[in-house]
Amino acid sequence: MKNVLSPLPWKVIESEYLHNRPWLTVRREKLLMPNGNIVPEYYVLEYPNWVNIIAITKEGQFILVQQYRPGIREICFELCAGVCESEDTSVLASAQRELLEETGYSGGVWTELMRVAPNASAANNYSWCFIARDVEKTGDQALEASEDLTVHLFSYDEVKELLAGGQIIQATMAAPLWKYIALHDKQMTP
Amino acid sequence: MKNVLSPLPWKVIESEYLHNRPWLTVRREKLLMPNGNIVPEYYVLEYPNWVNIIAITKEGQFILVQQYRPGIREICFELCAGVCESEDTSVLASAQRELLEETGYSGGVWTELMRVAPNASAANNYSWCFIARDVEKTGDQALEASEDLTVHLFSYDEVKELLAGGQIIQATMAAPLWKYIALHDKQMTP
Repeated sequence: MKNVLSPLPWKVIESEYLHNRPWLTVRREKLLMPNGNIVPEYYVLEYPNWVNIIAITKEGQFILVQQYRPGIREICFELCAGVCESEDTSVLASAQRELLEETGYSGGVWTELMRVAPNASAANNYSWCFIARDVEKTGDQALEASEDLTVHLFSYDEVKELLAGGQIIQATMAAPLWKYIALHDKQMTP
Repeated sequence: MKNVLSPLPWKVIESEYLHNRPWLTVRREKLLMPNGNIVPEYYVLEYPNWVNIIAITKEGQFILVQQYRPGIREICFELCAGVCESEDTSVLASAQRELLEETGYSGGVWTELMRVAPNASAANNYSWCFIARDVEKTGDQALEASEDLTVHLFSYDEVKELLAGGQIIQATMAAPLWKYIALHDKQMTP
């Protein structure tokens, strides 16, 4: 820490729910900073935790999905991803369920690669990324009514090209993919 | 594309502002999917674009900041970061202003490393990351009332250790740092 003091936590002195809908839960808080300043109006979004998966088939193909994203109004290449549901027994179980539902692939050997915070300042959730090696097609897609996505297989070099070209744009997915590449290309086990 | 069709965009059929505050602007939309399904209640958060900087001094030290983040209620190591203000003439100008305000460092040689979407499904903004090489301490921190952060210098290996240990947790920062490492360790110019 090189003799520089770390900042201290802030205190919540008031907190109320502004919205509490399935896809929009927001708290408005009044916060007290360690220097005595008051932040009168601070918004924190509550989300379930998220998962995504770097899924690789027995043949070495990477499974990506493509879907329209209303936030940025773009059709995106993505890792298979989803939210942790209350009935899932673990974050890993959420990831395995999502891969099967969205792509029809399952099985293989799973390892946790990393955890990131999508928005540490204004959201309370984390996103986990798993690597699933040697998965196999064992079923069909089982999409929800609000999902419309297609499944695509790419080689490792094609994934690197998409990523370097800015075509896998989501931060929660670009982070684990670049980590995978950093470790893989140095022949370290990611 | 391997003969798999791409999904189509969705149409906005109703849109209204639910909140329009400086730190919480939310639209509620009714969306029509290409398959004819209606999503009756879809929330999109509007944010300004964000910037962050991999800043490296003439001596090869990496400049990180440390601050408390109320969303995840943790004290985090981070890249220097901020939002694009309307008076900034470009995304690069926003990044240069933020580095000077938060750390007192400026100058050097700047290149754009990447752009990511913090939340492509529910937020409309992007986060840009720049690399700033050979920056120098030319001033003092000029923090806003709601900022409390400390500045820390680390070697490249120390940054890799923090990142690999999950101590730089924000997705918008982990993505460019892992990209930097992937390219740097292969001796490609990031």
